Amino acid sequence: MCRACDYTIHGRQHHFGWDNSFEPAARVAPGATIEFECRDSSAGQLTPASTVESVKALDFSKINPVSGPIFVDGAEPGDALKVTIEGFKPSGFGWTANIPGFGLLADDFPEPALTLWSYDPDSLAPAAFGAHGRVPLKPFAGTIGNAPAEPGLHSVVPPRRVGGNLDIRDLAAGTTLYLPVEVAGALFSVGDTHAAQGDGEVCGTAIESPMNAVLTLDLVKDARLAMPRFTTPGPVTRHLDAKGYEVTTGVGPDLMTGARRAVADMVELLAGRYNLAPVDAYMLVSTCGDLRISEIVDLPNWVVSFYFPRTVFE
Amino acid sequence: MCRACDYTIHGRQHHFGWDNSFEPAARVAPGATIEFECRDSSAGQLTPASTVESVKALDFSKINPVSGPIFVDGAEPGDALKVTIEGFKPSGFGWTANIPGFGLLADDFPEPALTLWSYDPDSLAPAAFGAHGRVPLKPFAGTIGNAPAEPGLHSVVPPRRVGGNLDIRDLAAGTTLYLPVEVAGALFSVGDTHAAQGDGEVCGTAIESPMNAVLTLDLVKDARLAMPRFTTPGPVTRHLDAKGYEVTTGVGPDLMTGARRAVADMVELLAGRYNLAPVDAYMLVSTCGDLRISEIVDLPNWVVSFYFPRTVFE
Repeated sequence: MCRACDYTIHGRQHHFGWDNSFEPAARVAPGATIEFECRDSSAGQLTPASTVESVKALDFSKINPVSGPIFVDGAEPGDALKVTIEGFKPSGFGWTANIPGFGLLADDFPEPALTLWSYDPDSLAPAAFGAHGRVPLKPFAGTIGNAPAEPGLHSVVPPRRVGGNLDIRDLAAGTTLYLPVEVAGALFSVGDTHAAQGDGEVCGTAIESPMNAVLTLDLVKDARLAMPRFTTPGPVTRHLDAKGYEVTTGVGPDLMTGARRAVADMVELLAGRYNLAPVDAYMLVSTCGDLRISEIVDLPNWVVSFYFPRTVFE
Repeated sequence: MCRACDYTIHGRQHHFGWDNSFEPAARVAPGATIEFECRDSSAGQLTPASTVESVKALDFSKINPVSGPIFVDGAEPGDALKVTIEGFKPSGFGWTANIPGFGLLADDFPEPALTLWSYDPDSLAPAAFGAHGRVPLKPFAGTIGNAPAEPGLHSVVPPRRVGGNLDIRDLAAGTTLYLPVEVAGALFSVGDTHAAQGDGEVCGTAIESPMNAVLTLDLVKDARLAMPRFTTPGPVTRHLDAKGYEVTTGVGPDLMTGARRAVADMVELLAGRYNLAPVDAYMLVSTCGDLRISEIVDLPNWVVSFYFPRTVFE
């Protein structure tokens, strides 16, 4: 994959939160290809030996390390950083957690929970879930972005117009991402790698998985982007869609409420049909279910739909 | 397609709005297969000869006729009506309009506009858009639902938990839809047929197209559904996804604002790249662009993404 990397950023070269005063881990010319070792979003606090007690004991000051930052020569505010996502080298280990207070249905699921995953990092065959489920994999980086212009330390949790914790499932191998630059050098970092996630990341975590990411960083001068945008090289859901979908809906005047309704109904449907604990169904759908806005114009009620890929159990 | 229809509901057997006191067009046993002639959502006010003046002259009291209602024997409140979508017989004519005051970017596009479409109803080959665009087709019924329990006449515009103007693109041939029943007999109606639409229906109209719909109506007793749900028999975006997507994003604390930002940026991108009037790009993306919620958990900012299928121009 990384046939000709110019740089390697090691896992120890990470930071917590965004701050444009952080010293660069490397200074590179536009066009450089870099392999980033990315720790998982628990920074190694969760391992194949972890239990739900490990979730309770999480140190949140160590959440979501990102590897970098990279100073790209010539990058200036108003430019776009063009990130070509060359590929990933996954580790084979992953975890999904319900973290109290975090997630779309946080009020319904106040207790911590943990699912551990083991997958083949070479074949990327679907990962086993319980005795009967298989979740298709598509590795990507959940957090990918530039440093914001505003001085000081900023939480890594919310994404921003410079990117960051975007958690966009389709920022996978082959995709080209364009990120607004707000500071000289861009100060790009990446981490929070996921082996699989559905659109929405509804329980708050995906299949969180340490892996290496190989990226090429280039510049589009004076691009004047308002927000991140990206181009995918081909289809984005073929790993999921072969057997069709079960779909629940939320109809009403608020998109957030509609999303909660659709996800809650899917959790109930799957828990009943497959004899799962509701919190396990909730973590499962976070790794593979997709939130879509079916209509957003039929005043005053919108339709949010949640698509669960039937291939997981069929 | 309709090898063994039990009933035909003609286009004249339509109603405007929902009212559980409307006389049924037919009374059927569970399991009946019915062919519905569906008028377009302008009730024939827009034709292949229409111009933007026709949009200005629209009589909104005649918007969105639905064919029916059908009284299904034995249907009671608490049941679900199981609608098997057998298929469609499209007409070959369609229209997309920007109707002032209606649509996600109504403030940006205050002037009426009209796109007329002609497509092959047998091959369903992608429909030409201007000199270079081709929009893949997938016929479905935008409005499909049961009568609400609440007495009186209700606008057809908003969808409700009993269905109605759901505008869900994947309610296409082969899908099975489950709709809550709120009144004896269900009083099912269908209309607002579309030859193509993206998730969101962002300009407020799709490729609006008269066509016949063949549906089988059955019952699931005491299903106690909160909202509509459906099952698709296979993939839902393969007509769109072969060449991948251009994607714009909206990042921030409000899903509606994020959706507007993502769509506005896509309109600007396509208008610039393909030399389109912005309102024409807006109508185009309504027929084929998909709104997805990429993440809804990274407090306080969510990511809404708008996916435009590159196959339209490539």
